[in-house]
Amino acid sequence: MSEQIHVSFDELRDALRRVFAAHGCSDHVAGLIAENMAIAERDGAASHGIFRVDGYISTLKSGWVDGKAEPVIDDVAPGFIRADARNGFTLAATDAARHQLIAKARENGVAILAIHNSQHFGALWPDIEPFAREGFVAMSMVNSMACVVPYGGCKPVYGTNPLAFAAPRAGGDPVVFDQASSAMANGDVQIAAREGEALPPGAGVDAGGNPTTDPKAVLDGGALLPFGGHKGSSIAMMVEIMGAALTGGKFSFEVDWSEHPGAVIPHTGQFILLIDPGQGAARPFAARVEELIGRLRDAGVERLPGERRYAARRRAAQHGIPLDAEDWARLRERAGI
Amino acid sequence: MSEQIHVSFDELRDALRRVFAAHGCSDHVAGLIAENMAIAERDGAASHGIFRVDGYISTLKSGWVDGKAEPVIDDVAPGFIRADARNGFTLAATDAARHQLIAKARENGVAILAIHNSQHFGALWPDIEPFAREGFVAMSMVNSMACVVPYGGCKPVYGTNPLAFAAPRAGGDPVVFDQASSAMANGDVQIAAREGEALPPGAGVDAGGNPTTDPKAVLDGGALLPFGGHKGSSIAMMVEIMGAALTGGKFSFEVDWSEHPGAVIPHTGQFILLIDPGQGAARPFAARVEELIGRLRDAGVERLPGERRYAARRRAAQHGIPLDAEDWARLRERAGI
Repeated sequence: MSEQIHVSFDELRDALRRVFAAHGCSDHVAGLIAENMAIAERDGAASHGIFRVDGYISTLKSGWVDGKAEPVIDDVAPGFIRADARNGFTLAATDAARHQLIAKARENGVAILAIHNSQHFGALWPDIEPFAREGFVAMSMVNSMACVVPYGGCKPVYGTNPLAFAAPRAGGDPVVFDQASSAMANGDVQIAAREGEALPPGAGVDAGGNPTTDPKAVLDGGALLPFGGHKGSSIAMMVEIMGAALTGGKFSFEVDWSEHPGAVIPHTGQFILLIDPGQGAARPFAARVEELIGRLRDAGVERLPGERRYAARRRAAQHGIPLDAEDWARLRERAGI
Repeated sequence: MSEQIHVSFDELRDALRRVFAAHGCSDHVAGLIAENMAIAERDGAASHGIFRVDGYISTLKSGWVDGKAEPVIDDVAPGFIRADARNGFTLAATDAARHQLIAKARENGVAILAIHNSQHFGALWPDIEPFAREGFVAMSMVNSMACVVPYGGCKPVYGTNPLAFAAPRAGGDPVVFDQASSAMANGDVQIAAREGEALPPGAGVDAGGNPTTDPKAVLDGGALLPFGGHKGSSIAMMVEIMGAALTGGKFSFEVDWSEHPGAVIPHTGQFILLIDPGQGAARPFAARVEELIGRLRDAGVERLPGERRYAARRRAAQHGIPLDAEDWARLRERAGI
């Protein structure tokens, strides 16, 4: 690793926006991907940061995804929006449906957004944290491509299938978690392979279905395992059903890149649920969440879900976002700046 | 264990109804508890079957719960129902709100029921499986009493906090899971203690916070651990937030039985989410779930979530529900039959 430098959020986002705009995205979509990726990098989630630029570019080049697609938003019921991303990114669909989704959740107390014909390659928490900042409880599920062996099975069926949840709290930043249903996120396996590090036991199997701690064996025909045995496998199933069957998207095992060499972004679906906790509430919701947080602190919990990201965000606000100097130089070159 | 006998579902439910009616429940509430418990026993879930009769009776006798309470249903928004169980069982609130909840989900595409001032001591899947049989995706969360140490903490904060999920499938019974966020369900720890069996490693800690496989050490001042490390702990947090903060119920750590010796049923909340997957759907949802099931079979999965219960249910339909003869005699005596 070369020297470490620091860049501002705006600098990083702007460079990324230029990179994506130069590789087939509309300015609007380029801005949305850049924002998501810069947030991940800023918040210390390297596996969803600029590490993924190559994957976006090779996928855009392959013709697998339409970086200029304009989503079609379909108001199917008072609390239900469907979106056809028209083979673009879910980020564009969520952006287009956002105000309507919020209005529906306020009006009905609950609303859902089901996106299909879409691609998601970013972190999930940037999709839902803003809803919690506006007072909503938010949940999202995204399936991906078959790389996780179901409990009791011997072949991959599920994607890493992240589940993200966000709730406002009275005394601080929202409580947010964003976790793969696999024992590890795919991006973290890729990083371990790049860095030559072993995986923790129980994370994956090789092409023969045997347990392995070698990240390359997992990536090379092997597969991940769900977290927490059969219970984590049930969570993965729920995400698969909500991310694909409910949205009208593809299952993780239906993703087929064979006609598009270079494509690495799953073409699946995304489910988002918003609840307005203030509807008829006897006691303020965010204050009650704060009481729970207080009790968790008393029980010795030092780091709540999301707090490592918030700490990285504060450091970045003060010192800038730490980047490998070579990575930054390469990114600037690609951005033409 | 004495001789095993077999009883019909109706016989068991009727005996249980009489027991609960004789111990402070209205006929209506006694019937609801009896139904839930007979279903659990029939479906092979001993930890939620007649094993729990004593807990219901001692709790009813203690004055902690009102077995005759009539819930108040509050229509707070087009997609949001709140229910005050008036210190009765959530079963009565769910029963009272059921038709309205279904109508709201059909009208809005999604609806939620948030119950507070309530008690839940039964299995969760009988609450939601019927919704899936009517074509809905259903989810439920219930917090309980502090007996699970959060990841990174040293004192119990969460309850066993079950999360249940049900979805219809075209080719068979709904896919249903109902799983504690703890490594084990509390009822299973009690059964292990009674049977003198050790717990699996990682399930619990003793009163000093040390890992133990002794169920008595867990029950005697010790605590359970979440399943799946920090990810399972996040699920437990989500259930705690939805079951208590959103509903207006008590957190698991706020349950205080000290004034009611004999009480063992947590006074907390229940959250139920219904989604009508048919709203604007391009492809039939249940058929898509069936495709996923087919793929899971192909991958070698022999038992889907819920299938062990369905198998026990089929055996019971054919041969009756297997019970210990002494347990059945004791139950009949209590029922006065």
